[in-house]
Amino acid sequence: MSNPIRVRYSDTDQMGYMHHSNYLRFFEVARLEWLSSLGISYKKMEQSGIWLPVAHASVQFKVPSYFDDELRVKVTLETPPKASLLFSYHVFNQDETLVSTGKTKLAFLNAATGRPMRCPDDLYQVLQPYF
Amino acid sequence: MSNPIRVRYSDTDQMGYMHHSNYLRFFEVARLEWLSSLGISYKKMEQSGIWLPVAHASVQFKVPSYFDDELRVKVTLETPPKASLLFSYHVFNQDETLVSTGKTKLAFLNAATGRPMRCPDDLYQVLQPYF
Amino acid sequence: MSNPIRVRYSDTDQMGYMHHSNYLRFFEVARLEWLSSLGISYKKMEQSGIWLPVAHASVQFKVPSYFDDELRVKVTLETPPKASLLFSYHVFNQDETLVSTGKTKLAFLNAATGRPMRCPDDLYQVLQPYF
Amino acid sequence: MSNPIRVRYSDTDQMGYMHHSNYLRFFEVARLEWLSSLGISYKKMEQSGIWLPVAHASVQFKVPSYFDDELRVKVTLETPPKASLLFSYHVFNQDETLVSTGKTKLAFLNAATGRPMRCPDDLYQVLQPYF
Repeated sequence: MSNPIRVRYSDTDQMGYMHHSNYLRFFEVARLEWLSSLGISYKKMEQSGIWLPVAHASVQFKVPSYFDDELRVKVTLETPPKASLLFSYHVFNQDETLVSTGKTKLAFLNAATGRPMRCPDDLYQVLQPYF
Repeated sequence: MSNPIRVRYSDTDQMGYMHHSNYLRFFEVARLEWLSSLGISYKKMEQSGIWLPVAHASVQFKVPSYFDDELRVKVTLETPPKASLLFSYHVFNQDETLVSTGKTKLAFLNAATGRPMRCPDDLYQVLQPYF
Repeated sequence: MSNPIRVRYSDTDQMGYMHHSNYLRFFEVARLEWLSSLGISYKKMEQSGIWLPVAHASVQFKVPSYFDDELRVKVTLETPPKASLLFSYHVFNQDETLVSTGKTKLAFLNAATGRPMRCPDDLYQVLQPYF
Repeated sequence: MSNPIRVRYSDTDQMGYMHHSNYLRFFEVARLEWLSSLGISYKKMEQSGIWLPVAHASVQFKVPSYFDDELRVKVTLETPPKASLLFSYHVFNQDETLVSTGKTKLAFLNAATGRPMRCPDDLYQVLQPYF
């Protein structure tokens, strides 16, 4: 489960809901934190020339989130990584209510060539206990 | 096809791509413009107590978008509206390249009661030629 | 000093900097946290019909912030509150470097009437030790 | 005067206002469009190694902007460019009401060295009629 992510005032819209596009940002925060907890710095990975752009994303919005809510995201690696990483997300608020779920597929990209690549071996090893 | 939506500098991320979360915002701009072209003001609809929060969204990212790109979004109503509106989106850049596709499901909500409702009759009539 | 606010990937722009507009959002996070630490819930204040829209803001950008930086914001109440609250901000990164400073003036607004109002007495009492 | 910039649903906050941080984004859109109207592509300038990060910004919020408002921004170059560009902004809505004003100072930066530089000669020539 991720650290709590507080819904900011600037995240709200005029319905008084957190604007739905922010869930994609929260998924990103949570998966980078999850990788970081395994000792994987996305910042360093990117500096070493490996990019992980999002290739596909889906979100199911169950109940709204509101200003000042404290959301926590459960991140799950769905399948063994090959050319991409498939994550699923479960977002809970401070009342333990499931507010949304989602999935993202991230493609390994060689930043120098702009071409797809396979999951680097060392990353594969670190992720192995989770798939 | 929507009016062109120019990718702003503030939409980019450090990969030099438009951050993927912005596609959900562009879908929203395009569907409200599409409704507006049929004489439906989402602003007035909301003021009359009918909300349309997003219940589900998915995005397929095909090629990146960049700062200053001019994106146009083809909006399609997928099914006859009942308790929700299902839209699909095809986003093209200035080179006519398909950069992303997506779908969103929007649920009709009675703002006063917070309860789901069916598509209002007058809206159904206006949308009828499109499904 | 605020809790650390981590620069998100979605906060960056194609220079690799945190986009400058985000500082206004971070100021907001920090001042609401500061008020919260004094027992003042902005959420409840707003629900009670008192709004605090920003009337003026200025930001001095000293050095860039980067993805994954941990910023902390020192919030200072500048003057006794009358019809508005004047805050100043000093933003430091994880190396204790001052990355930006700023000021915002927030005007008390009666949400029901849309008219300016004076700082409520109970809020004035709570803020008194800080001006 | 810039092309109209429509306030998006995602730009609003729970007061029903456009969130104030968006004005900095709109200033950016307007000044890049203004430069573009003089034949200056910021995209190409950046690719040639000249960056223009914001060094200082201020915004005066006069009346709120709302979802679906059409804002136009008058951009004025304030002083002859030396190591920086100083712009002022006047933002009007569809009723010709002045909704906000602002200033930004942008510093010329040699991207390769990370050091300040003077306004390039060719840019200076193009800007000369405007200061």
